[in-house]
Amino acid sequence: MSGKIGILAIGHGSKLPYNKEVVTGVAENIAKKHDDFVVRVGFMNMDEPTIKDALQSFAGTGVTTIAAVPVFLASGVHITKDIPEILGIEDGNNQSSIQIDGQDVRIVYGKPLGAHELIADLVFERAREAL
Amino acid sequence: MSGKIGILAIGHGSKLPYNKEVVTGVAENIAKKHDDFVVRVGFMNMDEPTIKDALQSFAGTGVTTIAAVPVFLASGVHITKDIPEILGIEDGNNQSSIQIDGQDVRIVYGKPLGAHELIADLVFERAREAL
Repeated sequence: MSGKIGILAIGHGSKLPYNKEVVTGVAENIAKKHDDFVVRVGFMNMDEPTIKDALQSFAGTGVTTIAAVPVFLASGVHITKDIPEILGIEDGNNQSSIQIDGQDVRIVYGKPLGAHELIADLVFERAREAL
Repeated sequence: MSGKIGILAIGHGSKLPYNKEVVTGVAENIAKKHDDFVVRVGFMNMDEPTIKDALQSFAGTGVTTIAAVPVFLASGVHITKDIPEILGIEDGNNQSSIQIDGQDVRIVYGKPLGAHELIADLVFERAREAL
């Protein structure tokens, strides 16, 4: 076993194309920068692949752990309840495991983006572009 | 007139505290790093101050232009319709003006965060923290 790490970028999903475009673009950027990680996207609702299908799409990659990270700005019910339920993560826990290729794969659940300095830098850049 | 620039960080708003916490934290971070700008927050719905109240809260600051930036990941109806309406921005345009302290103040409308490299860096950081 290679012990490779997967990253699952989880989007909210939308009837419009923009959320999927952003989450997919972010995942492509991570994959390009970090080619030792296996990167996939999955959507909570309204877009495909679903989170469950995205987890199974790590089949054949040899990942032993998947970091599932919500590409959401802030916490909320989707982050604390809906997505953990889909990932099989119980209350008060931040990990679970699933079977992929007949092997146990550990899932660890990341935090949403939050009020990180990088978000502030990007909002400032968006302000300057508009001026 | 000083020709000072204002930045209005616009949040979605939520019944839960998290969206307001993130948008406020982001605004504080910008204000700390860039003290030549006047930074305020406003919310589209469910939180206060409203966008309209936030615009008027630039009174007394001497700003002549306000960059209104949605702290949203992706575009969508809120970005293309709801928020421009509140800002008085017409279709196909990205600016308007309002009266503050009896003076015309220009409003320019920024883009949402999007699939920027900084978001990818932050999602990758959130993945690594979880591992």
